[in-house]
This record gives sequence, structure tokens and C-alpha cells, in this order.
Amino acid sequence: MAAAAQLLRGAARAARGPPALALAAPAGRRALGSAPPGMAAGRRGRRAALAAAGALGGLGLGLWRWQQAAMAAAEEDEKEEEELRQRFMAPPVSGLRELRRRRRELRSRMELLIMETQGEVCRALAALDPGAAFAVDTWERKEGGGGISCVLQDGEVFEKAGVNVSVVFGLLSEEAARQMRSRGKSLKAKDGKLPFCAMGVSSVIHPKNPHVPTMHFNYRYFEIEEADGTKQWWFGGGTDLTPTYLNEEDAVHFHKTLKEACDKHDLKLYPKYKKWCDDYFYIKHRGERRGIGGIFFDDVDSPSKEEVFQFVKSCAKAVVPCYIPIVKRHCHDSFTPEEKLWQQLRRGRYVEFNLVYDRGTKFGLLTPGSRIESILMSLPLTARWEYMHTPPESSKEAEILEVLRNPKDWVH
Amino acid sequence: MAAAAQLLRGAARAARGPPALALAAPAGRRALGSAPPGMAAGRRGRRAALAAAGALGGLGLGLWRWQQAAMAAAEEDEKEEEELRQRFMAPPVSGLRELRRRRRELRSRMELLIMETQGEVCRALAALDPGAAFAVDTWERKEGGGGISCVLQDGEVFEKAGVNVSVVFGLLSEEAARQMRSRGKSLKAKDGKLPFCAMGVSSVIHPKNPHVPTMHFNYRYFEIEEADGTKQWWFGGGTDLTPTYLNEEDAVHFHKTLKEACDKHDLKLYPKYKKWCDDYFYIKHRGERRGIGGIFFDDVDSPSKEEVFQFVKSCAKAVVPCYIPIVKRHCHDSFTPEEKLWQQLRRGRYVEFNLVYDRGTKFGLLTPGSRIESILMSLPLTARWEYMHTPPESSKEAEILEVLRNPKDWVH
Repeated sequence: MAAAAQLLRGAARAARGPPALALAAPAGRRALGSAPPGMAAGRRGRRAALAAAGALGGLGLGLWRWQQAAMAAAEEDEKEEEELRQRFMAPPVSGLRELRRRRRELRSRMELLIMETQGEVCRALAALDPGAAFAVDTWERKEGGGGISCVLQDGEVFEKAGVNVSVVFGLLSEEAARQMRSRGKSLKAKDGKLPFCAMGVSSVIHPKNPHVPTMHFNYRYFEIEEADGTKQWWFGGGTDLTPTYLNEEDAVHFHKTLKEACDKHDLKLYPKYKKWCDDYFYIKHRGERRGIGGIFFDDVDSPSKEEVFQFVKSCAKAVVPCYIPIVKRHCHDSFTPEEKLWQQLRRGRYVEFNLVYDRGTKFGLLTPGSRIESILMSLPLTARWEYMHTPPESSKEAEILEVLRNPKDWVH
Repeated sequence: MAAAAQLLRGAARAARGPPALALAAPAGRRALGSAPPGMAAGRRGRRAALAAAGALGGLGLGLWRWQQAAMAAAEEDEKEEEELRQRFMAPPVSGLRELRRRRRELRSRMELLIMETQGEVCRALAALDPGAAFAVDTWERKEGGGGISCVLQDGEVFEKAGVNVSVVFGLLSEEAARQMRSRGKSLKAKDGKLPFCAMGVSSVIHPKNPHVPTMHFNYRYFEIEEADGTKQWWFGGGTDLTPTYLNEEDAVHFHKTLKEACDKHDLKLYPKYKKWCDDYFYIKHRGERRGIGGIFFDDVDSPSKEEVFQFVKSCAKAVVPCYIPIVKRHCHDSFTPEEKLWQQLRRGRYVEFNLVYDRGTKFGLLTPGSRIESILMSLPLTARWEYMHTPPESSKEAEILEVLRNPKDWVH
């Protein structure tokens, strides 16, 4: 029956075509029916089987009533699935049915959250850049899992905007597992290997207009199972802003929105994660931060799984209100060729940070089987390096440099 | 007297202005009289002292003749120095007099070679780009030594061309010394510190026209003194080509010129260093080489110091004949916007290699006191990253990719 269900599911999807989203350009490249092994026959399969049984006729009234009730429940499930599907950019890596089957597990709730965040952000960006469309690529990882990359390139408002979801699982070496934790905590493996699951949503938005800042966010969750069956888990993430020119009002709005998201959970979080962000996005060889910060945290596993998840959810929900008003405010600002040039030089610094320091990028590039195009989608469409470029004193360019060298507190 | 000589030297230089080279744009920023400690009063100082003594009068005929002979010798020395000065882009880091004083030592001969190579290459490039000029910056390293950076930016023919000399010395930790040797050989230090000297010339030339390839070369020499006084020494270097489009004739000319330089010393060198080059300039996450190679070697300390130096000299002398004919042949070729775009994407790959893999760049960025602008002058003026860019099959773009994925033998 599992096979029949897969066939039915395949046919149903083929009839509808690619995920029914106005934003989805080319069809996903993930093979149909590629859900992880061990996935039970889904609801649509059960419904089809019930309908087929019904068509045989000659069944008693009790059985008929049971059938009707079961079909009604299945229809309701399907409606709910359809609703989720409308909000996502593509079918989730683990499969909708599988996620609903284990809906109480945190990894399922996190996968739904990152899918929802991807959808929300892509829709908000696409609404501001009506001529452009997100290309949606679904990809599989041979070793387990896969992802969905949504990229809008060379639009009117955005030079390059990428929103990426990945959900990967498999076995890790002790050394690789240790490297994944920023605190380098060692983990005890059975036969040298640790079953793991890592998932996250990450995004970099590079706008065209130099008065609209670049924005980056990433929210992720890890689980590793030790030899004795203990599950280690932790969350990481953050949202940060990289303006070409300083606009204090924007900086305050951005930080204030993040602070409000943090404050709902614990008043200590924003100051702690604001500082962590300034420390993390530091281009050491330049003595500059990449941008004006935001929040950043890694390896967070307390007070409880549920509480950290709720905090991460608040942060993810803050992405659109943090950033979209700033884009709207400035995307039609006029700018000079000199301002565009300064933007390009700052893009060069962005590349330097991402390729030289960013832990995620470095880890990704060195990990066999990772999808390079999704990792490097964070790089800008264009960048520039001039030898010994130094902006004149008291210029707008010197003003932002000062803030990148000496981070400020934007909200108290 | 040393102080007086310094003053005189300073005055003489100030009168002449910056090093008398047509190519030298702004005056060097290295402070005058910044020769390394231990340098004796130079010839010009001696001559001034002799002249001053003569002016006192009342000296015997024997002393007068001795004076005349000494002044004649000093004048000849000065003439020779002046000739060298004409060939260099700026005064050498160790000072011309000091280099001539210890002229038999290999480190002096190597410093003269790298200075000469810098001059040769800069003059050859400037001759092809008459409207542009090399900016010459001399810089000091607080911990010992310094360098001369020559950069031509945004010319007619060259987008960015940098030729850099550095001569640094001081004390290294055992760990840093180990990292400097590619074979990771450990060295025994006295009190945990090793006196070292490192010098080299390095250059990256990014032309504007996509039919003119990018060229890189670097020749370097290291000396480290162990606790028992033994001097470890080794050479490294190479020259390699990064075309945007494949031109077989150019590839053959480039490799043939390098092979001829190698073959003068040992027929085994070219095949060995050609392969080393293909292996070194590998962008692992892309599965591509940076370019079509050339030669590369590191940590070479046999058969003898003199023989390796002679080999390195042949390679350095081959830079201009390797590359300049290719620039001349194509710098006026017409090109399309699509070809320019492909060049920009390849520039992006150049940035990826340099920031993620290049040992010299990584070592430089992590070394306190290094001059970042000189290290990162290797980056192109502009670069581009497109998500999922794939050239059509059988295109000119696919043709070069094929060679970058599967290196070819260009000469036999």
C-alpha cells in the first residue's frame, strides 16, 4: 500500500504542477516521492484506499459510517495541509505528512517554523519587487536530507536576495560534531559516529539602492544523539543589518524591533546577543564590523527546549517587521554614482567577512556533500576592491566607518 | 658621525625628491633614514666627512692623495648606486649601502633580485598603459623590515595591477615558524623564539579586456636561525595564468617560456612544478582550478642555496617574456558585454581562491602587523557572483571550464 500511496501522491502533485505559489518560478528539482525512509503511507493514500474499499460495495451500515467519518477527517487533514502548502515555497524536506505525524516533536515544529519564515520573507520581498520572481530550487543531500533555495536576482529593488532552508541528517564523526558546537564541547559516539539532525533558515538580502541596507538572518537547530541515547540539542541564530550609509532612524527601528522580540522572553537577552553580534561580525584584518549589528547567539540550550524555541520563533517573526519598513522607506531614494561605488566597496568587505571568518560558510565549504550554490548565495551580485581607498574626513562614508569601528548602542 | 651622515643622506634625498622614476607617482611614505639597526654610516656619509676634513686645509700631500683616491672610489660607488636606484621603484628596504656591504650574502642578492623584478615588471606594464601610473607606497613594519607596494588602478589596459616587495625580519614563535614551512617541519628555538628573515616579490595583474588573462607571480626566500646557530633556508614561488577564455596559442607560449626557464636548471623541474601548480590553485568547493596553471613550488632547499637561487632568478626573469606578449596580442581585441560578464564571474572565483585557500593570504591576514592593503591588492577591482550560473554546452565559457576541471599538458 505504501507504493500505491506514493503513486497516488505523485499523480496528485503532477496534476497540480509545481507548488502552487505565484512566486515559485521553475519547478522544484527534488524528485517526487523522495520523503525520508521509514515514512508511513500518508493520509491521501489512506483516503484513496478507503474510497477504493467503498467502491467494492456490499458493506454493512456501521462500516459505512466509520468510512464516512474517516473520510471527513482525512478531508480536513488535507485542507490543513493545503493551507500549509500555500504558505511554503515548496514541500518541506521531511514531507508534510511526516511532520504532522510527529507534530509534537520539536524538530517538526522547528521545520514548520523555518518553512513558514522562508515563505513570509519571500512573499514580503517579492511584493516590493513586482517585476522579479524567486527561483525556487529544491535539492537533496545524498547523505540525508536536503533543502529549498529561493533566490531573486537582478530585480528592480533587490540586486540579490536569497532565502534558504536546509534540513540535513545522518551520521557525524566526533571531530565534526565537536566543530559544530561553538563551545567545542565533545560528544561520546557509538562506534565513532553520532546520529545528527541540523536544520535552519538563512537569508541574505542585497538591495540595489545604496540607501537600502543589506540584511542577513539565520535561525537553526541541532540535535545529536550520544552513545548512551542522550540527545544533545541547541539553537543558534540572529538578524543583522549592513548599511552602506548610516541612517540613525533605521538603526534604531531595527534594533528596537529585535529588542522587543527578545524582551518578551528575558530582558537579559537583547544586551547579551547584541554584544555577541558586534563581536561575531568582526572583520579582524580591517578592524571593522561587517555592519551595525543586531542580535547573534549560538549553542543555546537553556533554560529549556520549549523556551528557547519560543524565543527563536519570536526572533523569526521579527524579521519582516525589522527590515521591510526600511526597504519601503528608501528603495526610491535617489543616489549618485559615488554612493553606488561606496556600496560596492562595502560589498567587498561583506565578501571578506563571509569567506574568511563566517563559521557557517567555512563549515559548509569544507563539508563534503554540501550545496555550494546555496552556501555562496550570501555573496553579493557585484563587489569592488580599491587599493588604499580612504574616505575623506567628516564625509558620510567616514561616518559609517566610525560606527563600524566603534559599535554604538541604538536602544536602551 | 652616523647621525650627521643620516642628516646629509636625508638632505640629498629631499633635494632629489622621490626615487627618480617616471612611474613613481606619490612620494614613498617610508620615513627617511629608516635603515635597519646596525647599519654603518654609508658611503655618502663617508664622502661628506672626507670633504669636510679636506676643507679644514693644512693637510700633507700623502693625505691629500689618499683623500683624492677615496673620493674617486666613493663617486664610483655612488654612480653604481644611482644606476640601481634608476632600476628600482623605491629605495630597498635594507638600504642600498647595506645591501652592497653584504653583497656576497644570499639574502642581499635575493633582495636585489626582487627589487629588480619589481622594477622590470612595473616598467613593462606601464609601457602598455601610457595613461596610467603606478602609485608607489613604501611602508615599514613595526616589528622589523617593510616593503614597497606598486599599484596601477583603473588604467586603459589594466583594471588593477599590483607588484609588491616585502622584506621582513624579527623573531618568530616555534608554532609560527612551523606554519611558514609547507612541510610543517619543526624548528628548535632558543628561549622559544627564532630569528627569521622573509622576503619576496608578488604580483597580480588583472587586465580590463576579457581576452587578456590575469597573471600572478611570487618569488620568496626565508631564513630561520635555530637555537644551535644553524640557518634553515628555503625558497618558494611560481608564475601562473588565469584566462577568462581559452586561447591555446597563449597557453602554450606561457607554459613554454616557463619550461625553458626551468629546463636550464633541471629537466625534472617543469613537470614537477607544473603539477604542483595545478594541485595548489584548486578551488576545492568548485572542483575547478583557478586558472590554467604555470609553475608553483614551495619549501625548496636543495640541491644548494646557490643553485636554487639561480633557478629562482631564471623564473623571475621569465615573468615579462611569459606574459607581456600575450597582453600586447589581445589588449585591443573587441569584446561583448556577455564576455565582460563572464570575466566578472571568473574574478569572483579568483576572490574565492585567494580568501579561502591561498596560504600566503591566510597567513598574512592572521599575522599581526602585516600590511593588509598590500596583501589584498591581489583582489580584482570588481567581481560578480550569480546564483547557479551555468554556461551552455559547447560555448567558449564551457570550453575554459573544462580545462579548469581537467588540467591539460601544454608543452611536452
